[in-house]
Amino acid sequence: MKWPCLVFGAAAIGWCALVDSLAADTGENIVVQGIPGRVVACATCHGARGEGGGEGAYPRLAGFPAAYTETQLKAFRGGSRASPLMSPMATGLSDADIDAIATYLERQQPPFAAAPTAEPARLEHGQSLVTLGRWAQGVPSCTSCHGAALQGVAPAIPSLAGQSAQYLSAQLAAYQSGQRAAGPLDLMGRIARGMSSDEMRDTALYIASLRLGAKPEIPRPATPEPYIAKPQSPDAFVPPPESAIPSGPYGELVRLGQNIFEDTPKYATAYAGNTLSCRNCHLDRGRDALSSPMWAAYVHYPEYRKKDGLVNTIQMRVQGCFRYSQNGTAPEADSHELTALVTYFYWMASGLPVGVKPKAAGYPKLNAPKAAPSPERGAKVYAASCTLCHGDNGLGRSSGGQQVFPPLWGSQSFNWGAGMHQVDRAAGFIKTSMPFGAGGTLTDQDAWDVAVYVNSRPRPEDPRFTESVEKTRALYHSDHDYDYYGREVDGLLLGAPGTLEQWERRKH
Amino acid sequence: MKWPCLVFGAAAIGWCALVDSLAADTGENIVVQGIPGRVVACATCHGARGEGGGEGAYPRLAGFPAAYTETQLKAFRGGSRASPLMSPMATGLSDADIDAIATYLERQQPPFAAAPTAEPARLEHGQSLVTLGRWAQGVPSCTSCHGAALQGVAPAIPSLAGQSAQYLSAQLAAYQSGQRAAGPLDLMGRIARGMSSDEMRDTALYIASLRLGAKPEIPRPATPEPYIAKPQSPDAFVPPPESAIPSGPYGELVRLGQNIFEDTPKYATAYAGNTLSCRNCHLDRGRDALSSPMWAAYVHYPEYRKKDGLVNTIQMRVQGCFRYSQNGTAPEADSHELTALVTYFYWMASGLPVGVKPKAAGYPKLNAPKAAPSPERGAKVYAASCTLCHGDNGLGRSSGGQQVFPPLWGSQSFNWGAGMHQVDRAAGFIKTSMPFGAGGTLTDQDAWDVAVYVNSRPRPEDPRFTESVEKTRALYHSDHDYDYYGREVDGLLLGAPGTLEQWERRKH
Repeated sequence: MKWPCLVFGAAAIGWCALVDSLAADTGENIVVQGIPGRVVACATCHGARGEGGGEGAYPRLAGFPAAYTETQLKAFRGGSRASPLMSPMATGLSDADIDAIATYLERQQPPFAAAPTAEPARLEHGQSLVTLGRWAQGVPSCTSCHGAALQGVAPAIPSLAGQSAQYLSAQLAAYQSGQRAAGPLDLMGRIARGMSSDEMRDTALYIASLRLGAKPEIPRPATPEPYIAKPQSPDAFVPPPESAIPSGPYGELVRLGQNIFEDTPKYATAYAGNTLSCRNCHLDRGRDALSSPMWAAYVHYPEYRKKDGLVNTIQMRVQGCFRYSQNGTAPEADSHELTALVTYFYWMASGLPVGVKPKAAGYPKLNAPKAAPSPERGAKVYAASCTLCHGDNGLGRSSGGQQVFPPLWGSQSFNWGAGMHQVDRAAGFIKTSMPFGAGGTLTDQDAWDVAVYVNSRPRPEDPRFTESVEKTRALYHSDHDYDYYGREVDGLLLGAPGTLEQWERRKH
Repeated sequence: MKWPCLVFGAAAIGWCALVDSLAADTGENIVVQGIPGRVVACATCHGARGEGGGEGAYPRLAGFPAAYTETQLKAFRGGSRASPLMSPMATGLSDADIDAIATYLERQQPPFAAAPTAEPARLEHGQSLVTLGRWAQGVPSCTSCHGAALQGVAPAIPSLAGQSAQYLSAQLAAYQSGQRAAGPLDLMGRIARGMSSDEMRDTALYIASLRLGAKPEIPRPATPEPYIAKPQSPDAFVPPPESAIPSGPYGELVRLGQNIFEDTPKYATAYAGNTLSCRNCHLDRGRDALSSPMWAAYVHYPEYRKKDGLVNTIQMRVQGCFRYSQNGTAPEADSHELTALVTYFYWMASGLPVGVKPKAAGYPKLNAPKAAPSPERGAKVYAASCTLCHGDNGLGRSSGGQQVFPPLWGSQSFNWGAGMHQVDRAAGFIKTSMPFGAGGTLTDQDAWDVAVYVNSRPRPEDPRFTESVEKTRALYHSDHDYDYYGREVDGLLLGAPGTLEQWERRKH
């Protein structure tokens, strides 16, 4: 479509400009044929359908979220992402060209190249990093953000599936060295700087070895690693490695507990009231010392709780999570699901002394804020640091039909009775653990502000609602500072029955 | 009635002998008036109704089990119990006199003398020994054998209630030194030899301080002893002291759990199917390292059990005790009673590492017997060493309306599904822990023999009974050596429905 413009000369320029602008909509043309004189066809290196090429030197682009491709092309064009090959190409692209290319590539689903082979030990090492990470050292699992099948999460998190090992390890190295900037939150920069070169290589090898659509599985050796529980100090505790989960009925129940923890709606369907999973508040499968680890919880129950005025067993405590955080139904104390969760916690606590409350129990306490937390300031923090994962609308992000990042408000989030609804708890969690890979980067005041902003958003009502918002607040929220329960926001009384529905009718 | 015999001389001897033998029935006469020329009136020292005298020097005899008084008088008469005062008196008594005195004294209920005072610290120390003992050093609590109100247990265990401190400590000292023999099992000899002179003094002071019918209470300080749980080695574990049970709702639940453990029929009435309590198999309130202590159990559940083919939580495990050992109904997993028991176990396990099975877990294993265990030999061991507490008929012994020693068979004992029905487990328990205060004194072979004897006695049927004895045995007992399930004894097929009823119709 472009050749006639050149052939018919200057007289045709007006018409050609029109054709050009129309042609820009056809991303396929730019990818397959390029823009003569300005841009070499993307297909030359990346393949006509974005399948990648050069035996892995040129990345697969097919299926990338359009917004991600757009961001990257604009970064090449503007110079914030350096590449001797891509920068000159991107310079020749208009915004409309970029949009067209990105839209075209997002729709492509070419077959993946045959998975390359690698030494089993390297693949297993990579598998562990991809599915488990090394959270304690600030390296979340790849699946935590890129999705369970590494398919990417629109709009900004790319698919890793189908990329070559060569490309993936080069990008990790570029993030690590700073050669490739990792966006405003520098998430991948922080994560890559926490990885050794062996780890980067093996992660890349493992991802490249996956077949199309394959979901990386947590590595489970046929013969569990021998593990003899030994007494451990409660304040320097390390749970047993994943690979030590024994075989047999006990190990199966531990794994079921872990599955419920990781994907509650799938494995405890009857009790789940929203799309949240236990892991959303208790990172690293309940192991992370900064987000109320389950090993620490296990050893300090039974304990009296003011919340219900009862001594709670660990079962009763978890029933509370289902009722409030899950906005669902409490599993019976002897249900298979609750027994599985408790067995998982018990296994994780191996060696920890009973009744000695580890320092890691609960969420970290943040100092009181200097200025009263402000939802208006918090909204700005949210926009800058939280939308990547939780969305502009706070409803979280899904990919491949599974919730990857949890909704923070709305009908699929925790209700007004949940612990995470308490501003101080949320602030502590946000400060230390958010965003993934960049915990500790927000200021204390930012954490308080964004916590109170999230707290001021509508969510399902407290199942203990009694008579009026005032009375319910007096019964259950009187001693929590800053929380919005019972306050009016946008003309709606938060916490009152029906508020969420009114809000949703207005917003959607 | 006796004077005429002397007055009318030899001619009257035949008639007098008759009168004498008739008069001997009137224990009151001997006690109040004595037998002129032969026996000084008991009342001279012990009071007309056996209330004791000499400001505590002469013991209270009122309410003693008749058999106990009889044994003691015969021991004085025969010389096996030495006393410069009592021996000459006893020499003058016929068997019939002794019987009459013992029967009269058993029926007396004179008021107790005013309780003497003593330093609070001494009384508290004594209270602890009386109600808690020092089981780990072979000193059971006094209440374990003498009854909850120290009222004695017929036929052979005397009342301690109402005795003077002077008399009680003198007797403990006499047992310790061997001056007073403590019967064939030498129980009080062993126990007294485990006590210091301070302990004997304070025990006596405390008992003497009790008011009529008062039940010694486990000491519970108004302000609990400060106790900070610290990590402990699983094989040298010491549970927190009783005095450290905290106040408030958590401590109250711990105490309720302990109460259920100590007196199951009273505190878990809805679930108890017989007169047994948890403490009957788990000595020292579940603390004793030799009888499957609850602190050791707590840290190794959840665990897979072949018995039901499931991973059992601690709640499920205790439900099994109610179903089989208690021959009752399993409390719901979240019932107040089960939560209280589990909270008590949790508190007791303070500092013990999770998932590290202590050596003390379960019952001690006994080496295989040299000769196949024989119920005939076992019956002899039983008669010599077990009847004192468990009775000739195996039905245990009660006092003051409360079961003091548990029934080992019959309708009020554990059923065929209980762990204690397994011969090896029973043999290990008997060898190490029976009788109270004399654990380890039976030979291994005796322990095996008496265990198999007890095992061969009828008891309530297994609630899992399925179709036939053969099938039920194959399902649940095929891998237990020596047990009598499904064998014929005295013409009755053990374990079959109705066997116990047939046996009871024959025996009673």
